[in-house]
Amino acid sequence: MNTETHSPAVAYLGPRGTFAEAALVALSLDSTAAIAADSVTAAIDLVRSGAATGAVVPIENSVEGSVSTTLDELASGSPLVITAEVALPVRFSLMVREGLSIGDIRSVATHPHAQAQCSAWLRQHLPNAQLIPATSTAGAALALAHSSSTEPAPFDAAIAQRLAADRYGLIVLADDIGDNDEATTRFIVVQQPGALPRRTGADKTTLVVFMTEDHPGALLEILTELAVRGVNMTRIESRPTRRAMGDYFFSIDCEGHIDDERVSEALKGLHRICRDVRFLGSYPRHDGKSALLRDGVSDGDFADADAWLARIRSGTA
Amino acid sequence: MNTETHSPAVAYLGPRGTFAEAALVALSLDSTAAIAADSVTAAIDLVRSGAATGAVVPIENSVEGSVSTTLDELASGSPLVITAEVALPVRFSLMVREGLSIGDIRSVATHPHAQAQCSAWLRQHLPNAQLIPATSTAGAALALAHSSSTEPAPFDAAIAQRLAADRYGLIVLADDIGDNDEATTRFIVVQQPGALPRRTGADKTTLVVFMTEDHPGALLEILTELAVRGVNMTRIESRPTRRAMGDYFFSIDCEGHIDDERVSEALKGLHRICRDVRFLGSYPRHDGKSALLRDGVSDGDFADADAWLARIRSGTA
Amino acid sequence: MNTETHSPAVAYLGPRGTFAEAALVALSLDSTAAIAADSVTAAIDLVRSGAATGAVVPIENSVEGSVSTTLDELASGSPLVITAEVALPVRFSLMVREGLSIGDIRSVATHPHAQAQCSAWLRQHLPNAQLIPATSTAGAALALAHSSSTEPAPFDAAIAQRLAADRYGLIVLADDIGDNDEATTRFIVVQQPGALPRRTGADKTTLVVFMTEDHPGALLEILTELAVRGVNMTRIESRPTRRAMGDYFFSIDCEGHIDDERVSEALKGLHRICRDVRFLGSYPRHDGKSALLRDGVSDGDFADADAWLARIRSGTA
Amino acid sequence: MNTETHSPAVAYLGPRGTFAEAALVALSLDSTAAIAADSVTAAIDLVRSGAATGAVVPIENSVEGSVSTTLDELASGSPLVITAEVALPVRFSLMVREGLSIGDIRSVATHPHAQAQCSAWLRQHLPNAQLIPATSTAGAALALAHSSSTEPAPFDAAIAQRLAADRYGLIVLADDIGDNDEATTRFIVVQQPGALPRRTGADKTTLVVFMTEDHPGALLEILTELAVRGVNMTRIESRPTRRAMGDYFFSIDCEGHIDDERVSEALKGLHRICRDVRFLGSYPRHDGKSALLRDGVSDGDFADADAWLARIRSGTA
Repeated sequence: MNTETHSPAVAYLGPRGTFAEAALVALSLDSTAAIAADSVTAAIDLVRSGAATGAVVPIENSVEGSVSTTLDELASGSPLVITAEVALPVRFSLMVREGLSIGDIRSVATHPHAQAQCSAWLRQHLPNAQLIPATSTAGAALALAHSSSTEPAPFDAAIAQRLAADRYGLIVLADDIGDNDEATTRFIVVQQPGALPRRTGADKTTLVVFMTEDHPGALLEILTELAVRGVNMTRIESRPTRRAMGDYFFSIDCEGHIDDERVSEALKGLHRICRDVRFLGSYPRHDGKSALLRDGVSDGDFADADAWLARIRSGTA
Repeated sequence: MNTETHSPAVAYLGPRGTFAEAALVALSLDSTAAIAADSVTAAIDLVRSGAATGAVVPIENSVEGSVSTTLDELASGSPLVITAEVALPVRFSLMVREGLSIGDIRSVATHPHAQAQCSAWLRQHLPNAQLIPATSTAGAALALAHSSSTEPAPFDAAIAQRLAADRYGLIVLADDIGDNDEATTRFIVVQQPGALPRRTGADKTTLVVFMTEDHPGALLEILTELAVRGVNMTRIESRPTRRAMGDYFFSIDCEGHIDDERVSEALKGLHRICRDVRFLGSYPRHDGKSALLRDGVSDGDFADADAWLARIRSGTA
Repeated sequence: MNTETHSPAVAYLGPRGTFAEAALVALSLDSTAAIAADSVTAAIDLVRSGAATGAVVPIENSVEGSVSTTLDELASGSPLVITAEVALPVRFSLMVREGLSIGDIRSVATHPHAQAQCSAWLRQHLPNAQLIPATSTAGAALALAHSSSTEPAPFDAAIAQRLAADRYGLIVLADDIGDNDEATTRFIVVQQPGALPRRTGADKTTLVVFMTEDHPGALLEILTELAVRGVNMTRIESRPTRRAMGDYFFSIDCEGHIDDERVSEALKGLHRICRDVRFLGSYPRHDGKSALLRDGVSDGDFADADAWLARIRSGTA
Repeated sequence: MNTETHSPAVAYLGPRGTFAEAALVALSLDSTAAIAADSVTAAIDLVRSGAATGAVVPIENSVEGSVSTTLDELASGSPLVITAEVALPVRFSLMVREGLSIGDIRSVATHPHAQAQCSAWLRQHLPNAQLIPATSTAGAALALAHSSSTEPAPFDAAIAQRLAADRYGLIVLADDIGDNDEATTRFIVVQQPGALPRRTGADKTTLVVFMTEDHPGALLEILTELAVRGVNMTRIESRPTRRAMGDYFFSIDCEGHIDDERVSEALKGLHRICRDVRFLGSYPRHDGKSALLRDGVSDGDFADADAWLARIRSGTA
């Protein structure tokens, strides 16, 4: 991250105790000064306004899919870039205020997605509990923590990530209560454009591509621009442009860094054939996997071709 | 629709008064006997179990994008097909119980998406009203209608489609309060496989495509199978398979009917190269637009080619 | 070969003793009744007129390339098909009339191609001999054999294949005098259309493809039709259509038999997009190599896809 | 042409009076000092050795197709480039020594191709004349001119281009006796590498492409490298590499100049994926036709893409 020592803090999708805060910790960012924002949009706006040096927001979940708000925020408005990513396993815990045991629980609050992902456990262990939707898992934990004898929370327990219990002084009654042990969420750090993260050899580049018109072969052409330069696409997501039904943009991740010759030539190719291409950053992959290159597309191959062409042009080939 | 006279009713994403019910009416289905289901999943389960002859559910919104639950439900479980579609403009109305005027409103309930889409109107006309999230717009209207003096609803007004006011006897104080006049939602009718809707010449075919493995050029190959037969893709959406981060399936709409030769040959091509292809139906397009065919891909062209090959094989060419 | 017992003999590019006659022998055709034609065109015309049941003519040489006359003859006129092929090593011998030894040779006649291919040997062993161009190698041998004391041939030796010495009673003074041991010529048997040779699993299909118009991407489209069905092209040759500079047709060999599903679908695809496709036969490869198929393009894969589509159409998938 | 004032003369496929000499004249090269070479190979060797500053040789005929020797000579040996081209209509004349009239002609010499192309005229006007093959049309005229009463030529007339009659003092008895008025031959000027002809906007680039291995999709990949950059191919010819049957190289003409960005990027792409690419020059098209460019591939589009990428890299996009 190109943060500077005197810069303002990093924002994240709050409140305290969210997976986003856990991601911030996993990225070794300073959580003590971090700003908990009310929404993805709010976190990103803090970066756009300069009030935060970066924002940690979710972009993709292995169960729910892409986080539309994040994709849409990055695709419009003033330019931002992704400078880092991390993938966290999604682990849910059942938490209560001190003194309550599982037999006392008649109502449980959590975000509907979390509720869906813990449904098997809930059916087995709390078949009669009323399930109350909350705006976020951490929000449920927060409300539970803030309840008092005079103003009790309208529920007895919350399902949230363990960090929320730590942050709010709640007691964890059960861990890992989600149905899917493999579930992960990928978080990104979003910043204003500036110096890009250095190329590591195991990088990812994110793009938003708007097509020139509604012509049927446009996506095929886009993929061909990437394929011809040996650039592998690892994610593609279509999103409505909000202009008309059937008008889409594509959010694309591909292997490699803008400083890789194959990536830069492909980006320029896309720029030439698309209505608009928005560069959303080149940054180290969370899994550290290097791109598997086919023959002829390494930087050395590109340099050889440049030298060859120069010799031809000078008549010395 | 291949409903039969004695068959059970059609289900829809309820409660009464939703856009889905409005879609059902727009599709000339019988709304009086229709079953309001609690969720997209519940509506579809009614079809799977045979308790409903079909389900009317949203699949795509021009502002929010695809409805993930619908895509995911159709991509797994027992096979279903889409037999019809309709696109409805998204129009929101502010509604109250009889006797209340706009000056009395201190709180408004609606679904967060609707709240977002009416935010400009709300800022201008109800800047101080508390905004209360509801599970659905019609749900907010229903709760308002069911409130009584002894058990009042915890809010004064609901934002929902006009049909909800009709269904629940509420009073509309303002119409068309959304920010985006162009917003539309597309609904589909989902049924058990059986006789397919007849080819009209302006049809759409929906597919779910699972790739054989994580190989970079797979999507390019899929698009090439379609392009070579002159089949235009009109929508593509990637969704996680819920197996691992980075493992996707594609939900694809293309022009044409499975009874068009170009479509059937392309489908067979996809079947041959993909891990799995799920056919989700061929049905008339909501906009009635005929496919624009390039040379050589009409049914006549395919028949000519068949006849030519037969002559060659018999040695009479 | 679909010859019939009462049918007329096979023609070949004569005179007796040519590589074409050697090819005829290698193909186990009856050489005693075979008709030596003056030219490729004459041999093929004998087939077209019904005077010969087939013609053995060269189509490709590993050193000189394609035999243009053969390609052009097959590309126009009444339809013919290739029913067999054989590849022969090109071996040259120096031959004289009985009684002459190498020291006596002051002039050598042969076809210019043969002369070029024996130039190293000639420089070394007959540096001072006058080299006389002949219409064909066997023609030089024939002229030498026909010479007499009253009407001597205007040269002392001929360079031709060994078979010519046998046919004409000449004496071979040196064998294998060509520079290139690897040189081979491929010969084909051309017949009128009728029952095709059976599929052997190691077959080749030959096509002539005329493009619909002078549009730049036409060849790319043609190759894509083949590639999408997993049909490998093994030879492509462009030839002028004799209409205007820059107007070409393509002569194409690809792996597989017209009875292979992938081949027949590809042929029909070409028929749909090209101005004209002329089928020139499916026949066993001279080298017996089976096609290496990628996944999804075997006949079994095509049959599976047909069955799948049938289930979908009947609503039983 | 990058000739220098003191440099040696230009060579051409002789003898004097050939179409190649006519091409040399049409190209405004100095014919008085030009060197008549015995063969295409000899003419090109004069350039390679430095004995000639350039060579005018045929490369393609609208009826016979490519001139294999020229293609093969340019594809191997020390590098040469094409610096100009011209297309000449192929017109044949019947010529005799002074004093002979058409009724006196019993034998006619010419090159077999010319004989074939004049066959209709010969059948009509000289049905009984003996047709004698000559190594070249101009060679026949030369032999006729050199005949004397003591050593007469073994034929009465020659078919050659009119220029041959001028050069050898023969009398033309009939002009334009070819069957095909549209027949043309394209000639090129071949030189040693050096300063390339300037870009004119209506240029052609010639390449020789050797594939990395015998892999089926190689040609498709080559064409895709060109197509992705909007480079139109106008000619493709396969030729055996003389290594083994089935081992080819491709001789390719495409629109544009190596100084066009789309061409140079495509060349570098080919260099990266092919075993070898030999650049055979960028030079003005004989027909002066400008390339028809699709959107996004002009030099301006490439420059815009470069600038855009530079802004992204500097963080100012």
